[in-house]
Amino acid sequence: MLKPLGDRVIIEVLEAEEKTASGIVLPDSAQEKPQEGKVVAVGSGRVLDNGDAVALEVAEQDHIIFSKYSGTEVTYDGKDYLIVRESDILAVIK
Amino acid sequence: MLKPLGDRVIIEVLEAEEKTASGIVLPDSAQEKPQEGKVVAVGSGRVLDNGDAVALEVAEQDHIIFSKYSGTEVTYDGKDYLIVRESDILAVIK
Amino acid sequence: MLKPLGDRVIIEVLEAEEKTASGIVLPDSAQEKPQEGKVVAVGSGRVLDNGDAVALEVAEQDHIIFSKYSGTEVTYDGKDYLIVRESDILAVIK
Amino acid sequence: MLKPLGDRVIIEVLEAEEKTASGIVLPDSAQEKPQEGKVVAVGSGRVLDNGDAVALEVAEQDHIIFSKYSGTEVTYDGKDYLIVRESDILAVIK
Amino acid sequence: MLKPLGDRVIIEVLEAEEKTASGIVLPDSAQEKPQEGKVVAVGSGRVLDNGDAVALEVAEQDHIIFSKYSGTEVTYDGKDYLIVRESDILAVIK
Amino acid sequence: MLKPLGDRVIIEVLEAEEKTASGIVLPDSAQEKPQEGKVVAVGSGRVLDNGDAVALEVAEQDHIIFSKYSGTEVTYDGKDYLIVRESDILAVIK
Amino acid sequence: MLKPLGDRVIIEVLEAEEKTASGIVLPDSAQEKPQEGKVVAVGSGRVLDNGDAVALEVAEQDHIIFSKYSGTEVTYDGKDYLIVRESDILAVIK
Repeated sequence: MLKPLGDRVIIEVLEAEEKTASGIVLPDSAQEKPQEGKVVAVGSGRVLDNGDAVALEVAEQDHIIFSKYSGTEVTYDGKDYLIVRESDILAVIK
Repeated sequence: MLKPLGDRVIIEVLEAEEKTASGIVLPDSAQEKPQEGKVVAVGSGRVLDNGDAVALEVAEQDHIIFSKYSGTEVTYDGKDYLIVRESDILAVIK
Repeated sequence: MLKPLGDRVIIEVLEAEEKTASGIVLPDSAQEKPQEGKVVAVGSGRVLDNGDAVALEVAEQDHIIFSKYSGTEVTYDGKDYLIVRESDILAVIK
Repeated sequence: MLKPLGDRVIIEVLEAEEKTASGIVLPDSAQEKPQEGKVVAVGSGRVLDNGDAVALEVAEQDHIIFSKYSGTEVTYDGKDYLIVRESDILAVIK
Repeated sequence: MLKPLGDRVIIEVLEAEEKTASGIVLPDSAQEKPQEGKVVAVGSGRVLDNGDAVALEVAEQDHIIFSKYSGTEVTYDGKDYLIVRESDILAVIK
Repeated sequence: MLKPLGDRVIIEVLEAEEKTASGIVLPDSAQEKPQEGKVVAVGSGRVLDNGDAVALEVAEQDHIIFSKYSGTEVTYDGKDYLIVRESDILAVIK
Repeated sequence: MLKPLGDRVIIEVLEAEEKTASGIVLPDSAQEKPQEGKVVAVGSGRVLDNGDAVALEVAEQDHIIFSKYSGTEVTYDGKDYLIVRESDILAVIK
């Protein structure tokens, strides 16, 4: 199992054919295209100046939109994942 | 439904023909042209150093002016939206 | 009515012929020429790290000097305005 | 009257012939030449993170040395002034 | 023994043949390839603004993924190590 | 008398022939050569976020080493001085 | 005696022939080669936002590894030293 550190989140990127029925379509002309994904693991939070950690807003299984060119790709147990900071996540699809 | 994270706001951009009767006209020569929009969803706020979140100043249905070149475009349920940070919003039209 | 957000201020720019009797004259050679204006609306203030907002130092109707190349131009109800951050305002003329 | 905002200070620049008897002479070779001036107005202070304002160290009538290339020139009532941030003031001549 | 300072961590880099049975495979096309390693020593933590130190999230013997191009190489007792800041560590493999 | 502001310090630069008996010799090859000086005046301190000022570590008459290319030269009463920030002072010679 | 200011540390650089028996060997290919040294003096600490100083983690006589290209060289009493900030020190050899 991969456990991200701090305010990092591990995402399973959803390809076009896996998209939600609600049908987010990304315009071709967008310079910084957002992408859809599913959260598979979240870090323990961002550490504040008083030493406490703020829990992340996203949780496992959340369906999210994130900035396409953010994060680091890893492959684990044969599957591709992306590790991003929570600040690279734009919105949750509910 | 799209729920933005943190201090992000989802905007439905208003085209010229949809503008308010009050008639904001954008000068052609402006280098960074502002644009009008309607807020459709707001994040839970910016997290302070003490762990609390500050609620955003704008609310759903607010009619706003924002910096034209800010944000990320998404299409959801066949409609175009823009996801911006609240700091990219200049003023509310009341 | 336009209500600026945060530490933003809406200014009606005063042209040369509208200047005060006290007669501020801008030197031709100044690299960053300041300009005169009248404050028409102020934001609710800059949000501090403890979540409070600090009220702005300027108020509606204040006659001010600001950095010429700051801010964003908007036209509302047929009049031109400039939206700047309070930190772009140099002084108040009393 | 000009009232500077925040940590800004309005200075009447002293030309060579107006210099103090103590005789500060600026070396020709200095890359960033300091200049003498007299403080004519001070802002209400720098706002701290707790919302209080810290009073400035300089006061009206102070004779000061400041960095030559800092600030913005204005002309008011026929006199030239310079508006600088207090951090551009190097020392007070007592 | 090497004891890292502050929020630094000493890592024994794991080469391809030493990888876990779970089999992380790094895609050839990744621009910033992550790498696997084993933590051999951790610093006493990041010092907060109140003077306390926040203990690191990783511990000795943790199997981790870190950004490939971060850190400083040292050789100690004939073995190669890498000294990185904890913020360069992306996730722990559990 | 010159009174520096904030965390600034006024230094009388010591030339080679004035150096201490202990004999600091600056290597010719050093890229950023440090220099010796004597502190002649210190500011009231750096202002903290709570409004207090932290007294400087150096005092008048201290014999110090500072970064050669820092600060602003002034001439006062026929003598040359350098005004630097305390952070440009590397060490005190005791 | 040299007393460094704030979070600075004075180091006696150890040349290859003076290295520890444990034998740190620096790889030729390292882009930013670390170097060994012995701490000969430490500053009174980094000043926090509340005015307190945090004592340094390293102490006199500590055998350390630091980033090779950091700091300022001085010669004192015929010996060469390096003055670095504590953050340039990577680890202590115990």
